Amino acid sequence: MFWLTFSIFLVACLGAGATGGLFPPGPWYRSLKKPAWTPPDWVFPVTWTVLYVCMALAGARVAAQPDNGLALALWAMQIAFNGLWTPVFFGLKKIRLGLGVVVMLWLAVLATLLAMWQVDWVAGALFVPYLVWVTIATALNAEVWRLNPEEARAH
Amino acid sequence: MFWLTFSIFLVACLGAGATGGLFPPGPWYRSLKKPAWTPPDWVFPVTWTVLYVCMALAGARVAAQPDNGLALALWAMQIAFNGLWTPVFFGLKKIRLGLGVVVMLWLAVLATLLAMWQVDWVAGALFVPYLVWVTIATALNAEVWRLNPEEARAH
Repeated sequence: MFWLTFSIFLVACLGAGATGGLFPPGPWYRSLKKPAWTPPDWVFPVTWTVLYVCMALAGARVAAQPDNGLALALWAMQIAFNGLWTPVFFGLKKIRLGLGVVVMLWLAVLATLLAMWQVDWVAGALFVPYLVWVTIATALNAEVWRLNPEEARAH
Repeated sequence: MFWLTFSIFLVACLGAGATGGLFPPGPWYRSLKKPAWTPPDWVFPVTWTVLYVCMALAGARVAAQPDNGLALALWAMQIAFNGLWTPVFFGLKKIRLGLGVVVMLWLAVLATLLAMWQVDWVAGALFVPYLVWVTIATALNAEVWRLNPEEARAH
């Protein structure tokens, strides 16, 4: 049952992550001013692949425990917002709305981490790299807004 | 706890459903040939609102039960694919890939319905209108492909 639920959570991640392939960073993103610490493009899919495996492992661990309802509801909420940022930012080029979405995602990931930790601390710990990465993504989105105010207003 | 998990599942639905407002049916969709039984545009947001409440109620009922891990993993999977169809179809105008996504969603909804029914038959029953609606959406996407073969090839 563990590997069945792991596979289901992983497919959920791939459903959300498919947006990364469908709305790739194109000429518009390259034309934006970005902070010096912006990771190179190839880092994003590599990092997300590792994070998705951690998220699916965490979900499957919690799914096998009692009293997991709150944690798994939050897991579902965070994956819904995970898949929303890429179409908003790269698809619609909405930098400000993208920041709103990634802040919602950050809050959802933090809440999921805390609720999972109550059920199984290993599952909570598996969400720590995800929270760190979404923190970086939030800072990057905010910096892109600050450095490209006219582009942010244009969409 | 029931209303807390209900609210979390509902926010997950609204995260996925936000794509409907962000990628609305525009001139491209209106220009497509559609079957005679295509619902008018206003039916879609009304129906989704009702379905989202049913989905959140179902999730909250199952979250309160023991042995709910499989059902809640599937609930998370279906919401990930729920939010993917609109950006693919209306955002990217990819009719064929949209059909692939909606078929994945249909399978995910059916699997979720069956797994929830095992835990709580009321929760399973609350997913029946959703499965019916996604069946209609799948048929509509397939018919749009059949009626607009050149448009389907163009994207």
